[in-house]
Amino acid sequence: MMSLDVVILAAGQGTRMRSRRPKVLHPLAGKPMVRHVIDTAVTLDTNHLHLVIGHGGDQLRQALEGDADRLRLRFALQEEQKGTGHAVAQVLDKLGPDKVLVLYGDVPLIRRETLVSLLEEVDEGHMALLTVTLDNPSGYGRIVRDTQGRVIAIVEQKDASQDQLGIRECNTGIMAMTSTQLKRWLPRLSADNAQGEYYLTDVIAMAAQEGVGIATAQPATPSEVEGVNNRAQLAALERAYQQEIAERLMVEGVALADPTRLDVRGSLHCERDVEIDVGCVFEGEVELGEGVRIGPYCVIRQSHIGAGSVVESHSIIEHSVAAGHNHIGPFARLRPGTHLAAKAKVGNFVETKNVQVGEASKINHLSYVGDATLGRDVNIGAGTITCNYDGANKHRTELGDGVFIGSNSALVAPVSIGSGATIGAGSTISKDVADNTLAVSRARQTSKNGWSRPTKAAQDQ
Amino acid sequence: MMSLDVVILAAGQGTRMRSRRPKVLHPLAGKPMVRHVIDTAVTLDTNHLHLVIGHGGDQLRQALEGDADRLRLRFALQEEQKGTGHAVAQVLDKLGPDKVLVLYGDVPLIRRETLVSLLEEVDEGHMALLTVTLDNPSGYGRIVRDTQGRVIAIVEQKDASQDQLGIRECNTGIMAMTSTQLKRWLPRLSADNAQGEYYLTDVIAMAAQEGVGIATAQPATPSEVEGVNNRAQLAALERAYQQEIAERLMVEGVALADPTRLDVRGSLHCERDVEIDVGCVFEGEVELGEGVRIGPYCVIRQSHIGAGSVVESHSIIEHSVAAGHNHIGPFARLRPGTHLAAKAKVGNFVETKNVQVGEASKINHLSYVGDATLGRDVNIGAGTITCNYDGANKHRTELGDGVFIGSNSALVAPVSIGSGATIGAGSTISKDVADNTLAVSRARQTSKNGWSRPTKAAQDQ
Amino acid sequence: MMSLDVVILAAGQGTRMRSRRPKVLHPLAGKPMVRHVIDTAVTLDTNHLHLVIGHGGDQLRQALEGDADRLRLRFALQEEQKGTGHAVAQVLDKLGPDKVLVLYGDVPLIRRETLVSLLEEVDEGHMALLTVTLDNPSGYGRIVRDTQGRVIAIVEQKDASQDQLGIRECNTGIMAMTSTQLKRWLPRLSADNAQGEYYLTDVIAMAAQEGVGIATAQPATPSEVEGVNNRAQLAALERAYQQEIAERLMVEGVALADPTRLDVRGSLHCERDVEIDVGCVFEGEVELGEGVRIGPYCVIRQSHIGAGSVVESHSIIEHSVAAGHNHIGPFARLRPGTHLAAKAKVGNFVETKNVQVGEASKINHLSYVGDATLGRDVNIGAGTITCNYDGANKHRTELGDGVFIGSNSALVAPVSIGSGATIGAGSTISKDVADNTLAVSRARQTSKNGWSRPTKAAQDQ
Repeated sequence: MMSLDVVILAAGQGTRMRSRRPKVLHPLAGKPMVRHVIDTAVTLDTNHLHLVIGHGGDQLRQALEGDADRLRLRFALQEEQKGTGHAVAQVLDKLGPDKVLVLYGDVPLIRRETLVSLLEEVDEGHMALLTVTLDNPSGYGRIVRDTQGRVIAIVEQKDASQDQLGIRECNTGIMAMTSTQLKRWLPRLSADNAQGEYYLTDVIAMAAQEGVGIATAQPATPSEVEGVNNRAQLAALERAYQQEIAERLMVEGVALADPTRLDVRGSLHCERDVEIDVGCVFEGEVELGEGVRIGPYCVIRQSHIGAGSVVESHSIIEHSVAAGHNHIGPFARLRPGTHLAAKAKVGNFVETKNVQVGEASKINHLSYVGDATLGRDVNIGAGTITCNYDGANKHRTELGDGVFIGSNSALVAPVSIGSGATIGAGSTISKDVADNTLAVSRARQTSKNGWSRPTKAAQDQ
Repeated sequence: MMSLDVVILAAGQGTRMRSRRPKVLHPLAGKPMVRHVIDTAVTLDTNHLHLVIGHGGDQLRQALEGDADRLRLRFALQEEQKGTGHAVAQVLDKLGPDKVLVLYGDVPLIRRETLVSLLEEVDEGHMALLTVTLDNPSGYGRIVRDTQGRVIAIVEQKDASQDQLGIRECNTGIMAMTSTQLKRWLPRLSADNAQGEYYLTDVIAMAAQEGVGIATAQPATPSEVEGVNNRAQLAALERAYQQEIAERLMVEGVALADPTRLDVRGSLHCERDVEIDVGCVFEGEVELGEGVRIGPYCVIRQSHIGAGSVVESHSIIEHSVAAGHNHIGPFARLRPGTHLAAKAKVGNFVETKNVQVGEASKINHLSYVGDATLGRDVNIGAGTITCNYDGANKHRTELGDGVFIGSNSALVAPVSIGSGATIGAGSTISKDVADNTLAVSRARQTSKNGWSRPTKAAQDQ
Repeated sequence: MMSLDVVILAAGQGTRMRSRRPKVLHPLAGKPMVRHVIDTAVTLDTNHLHLVIGHGGDQLRQALEGDADRLRLRFALQEEQKGTGHAVAQVLDKLGPDKVLVLYGDVPLIRRETLVSLLEEVDEGHMALLTVTLDNPSGYGRIVRDTQGRVIAIVEQKDASQDQLGIRECNTGIMAMTSTQLKRWLPRLSADNAQGEYYLTDVIAMAAQEGVGIATAQPATPSEVEGVNNRAQLAALERAYQQEIAERLMVEGVALADPTRLDVRGSLHCERDVEIDVGCVFEGEVELGEGVRIGPYCVIRQSHIGAGSVVESHSIIEHSVAAGHNHIGPFARLRPGTHLAAKAKVGNFVETKNVQVGEASKINHLSYVGDATLGRDVNIGAGTITCNYDGANKHRTELGDGVFIGSNSALVAPVSIGSGATIGAGSTISKDVADNTLAVSRARQTSKNGWSRPTKAAQDQ
């Protein structure tokens, strides 16, 4: 394969976003727009990705330089924004010998397949231009072809004749050519126009003039080439992207209660017969095993939910693992480091964190269990709290197999409860408990007969 | 009325669903598709419903045979799937003497009214075919009529002339005829076609040839005759169905904050001036009394909420009854067997189960109250837990009228608290408390002056 | 500026709403429809607003008379409903000398700008009519113009010729004229028609006949002039209105995860770079400071969330203030009177009410903190309850700076905990605690070895 350099333009300010953040760092599906472009481009086996930065350049470097080596990403600063041609010129001397592809950091949904078919058209006799046929082409540069169907020019809206305004094939700005071609054409661009800018688009005319063929390819859907200039456009692309994800999941066999009320920000991998109810949000890498059912309004981040599990509505799961056949929620909150063995249950108004829960153990109601290890068949009563924090340090709680914690108990860590032990309801346990032992810390119940409760204070009456 | 036999074809595999479940058992609005068809068909006063099963037939039997008698449902196994005509042939000798209606287990939204109007057309001189006029008929068999408007043939897409492709009236596959007609035509079907299958549709040509009139009827909306072959189509029909439900509720006078964000899976009966906020899910039979207000993101299953009640956002109610003028939620979870008398309140982070709550009693915060009976005017303090489970058995808690349970108390069942009694905060009560008595189990408060808390351990610093 | 009287027709019954509430009191975006009209009209510097009431008039008076003076609102009773002309006639003798504008209580989204441009057209030689060009004008009165483009008549659907049915410019019913014109025309209206009603629209013909010019203006969008006759129309307008709000917020720089899943019922003011995730509901006046992030499915009413704060999913905040850099939720519920100083945190399954939380203090899990004052750097352990209610009165809890409350503690108000004090886990504190003191109320932990738990009762086996 020929080597490929990709130039990604990402220097614009994005004033209409009204943000302190540079436009291309605004997230789509949880990932900066420019990162979508980079992640797509890097699959093309590129020599280098050249990111042309300008406004907010420091923020871009910061956001991306951690992965720069792996992505073969290089930054090039465009100090003044003098047009797309000027932007590409910043990296002209860094390009390899073969093909060059120009992409845009604010056109995030471009697909690999589209780019591959575009690049296939390029050789020394041909450059390639991505065009799109729009129902409403108003505002876009129109693709003018001769009677043989060969592209001969791009005419901007304002310069178009009445006939040309009727053309629905439009310029996307995405193009590819050989490095040789680009190096021949780019220095000849002129800023002799109303904006005083160097337009990359002008290379089309040069190619036509030289007799270099201008091959075209089209995206699978218009959303691939839609750019983002404001929040509304970003929101519209977000919805287009989410719809694609929903459709893909359904093709793979996922039952979605409402494809328009699903948000996937990252990757969602589902085994067979997964059911996802309305309004769920998935972030990071999430895996759902066969037959998993997710109830309405759950938020799941970076977690694995094993086969046969049920997550009831209004549950939040983060950086956790459920081995399988688990029952979680409703109103459960699994914080990072929660590992549920098979058949373990976490019920309503329960928070877990950094905890191993053994097979078939249950934390069914109103509890906080953190920094703990639970054996199998443990039963945590309602209102149980692991006191893992003494104001300075975190300590662990260890519960053996078959432990039964009575309701409303506090386990003051570090503390260990032996297998088969029982804690009486309402106890505060700060000393270890041996196996098969009943431990209680409970004051004697006393009564005062004929006691009358406070009455409403005068000032409130 | 003439007797009617209904044949429902449900033998297909549904490969594109990518599921272990047979296609027609996939739920729409919480009920298997085929069950929608059965429940509609059974309202027609049928002699029998004949369900032709094949792929996943055992699962279908299992899912439906509990109700088979009541539904007059008979199963017929189609061992090989050799077309719709072959499927109907499996029940030919079981049909009564009069009319026969052919339906499809994967066309779930067909309506009774449509079928009634179709069946009215049938006599020995006429069969009846349900057709639908589509904006985009591509892929469907077209209805060819003669100059007098009489149906003379169905032409499949691939066999259609350019003129015929312009026809927008399409075959739905749903048809009715007399048993005599069907018994005359069906044995004459041929599998001499590309697929090697017997097509029921071919009876149309036979009818035309014999001079039997082919009457047609049309559904009220195209969604009635849309079939499901994949998850996306099922999701689309789900939305169409939910939209119909929302529209019906609005006509009946329900205020819906957003008709596109409502899910009803079962029956929802609302009295006057009910308000339902965004994102609510109703399952099973749910009744909402006059003036009931349901906040955003509630999930209500098989419950009755009496007049004047308010259910605040993020509440889950299952198999429960609220008598009226109740205040529930937000973040309340009423589990099965919760009965709230008038004006009783259940507040945030409260779980109830199998509990009778007396008039005007309150469980306002962070409590678990299960297997309990509360009198009237009871006040349950925050953090109260009924310890109903000893690890083996469930026991009941009984609270008389006017009981006041101080916060953070544990009531160890079986236990009974007399009327007017008070439990001091933080108590664990395991012995019965007499009427008008103050009971406390609380250790003496002790102090250690000048105590300094643990400091951050070295390894964490 | 000339004086202006606005007449708002609000006497209709609204039978198709199927409600005990008069139609114009049904809320759109949380505010009665008629109140939208009033709030828009009052910005026009009116002499008086004349609300013509009839059905449900008492409910309207009750709903509005508290603000009547401020709004310069007068009620006029139309005892019988005999048409729009008859309705306006009820206030004819109360009109000032200059302009009159006629609006409708069930046409809630009319905008100030539209009305201003309409009123500008009015003088003694001209009245003004608001018209709207519809894609589907079916059912509306059509605007008939002469060859010079002058309005000459309104023709109702049923009276329209085939040519006139093709007219897409329609009557909205909203019109303005001088008081003199109205007083001249109104007494000449006739009820000699099928309905036996007096139609205000008939003044158009009178104007044309007299040679008074009929100027027209058009709304920015058709939703401005859409009327509500049933719940479905109200729901549709609600969505149109919410979409407008979402678009405005995005123009202002707010990041909306899904503009179709946002509900604003009141005013939402956002500083720069606010992010709002899916499904959030805002009610009353809500302010979000710079960089605030609101997670999915939050409900926020009448609150201020300061810059840099994060509100995680499924949180409910009402009548509260978060100073800035706060972390709230998920599953937090801030009830009225919650004031969080900078960097304070409220975590999952926590309810707060009428509480001051000092800087950097934390209430992270499963707690109820009400009627309390917390200093800075306070740490409230999981399961802490302030026992603020003794069954009759509410009392306050005071916690000094740096207090540490061990988990599962109950603080029985009135009670005061001095700065730097520590409460041992599981304590019930009913006496004040001095500064830098450790207070505990905990029974001694006792054990019974070899204890065997209850076994399943025979009757359950």
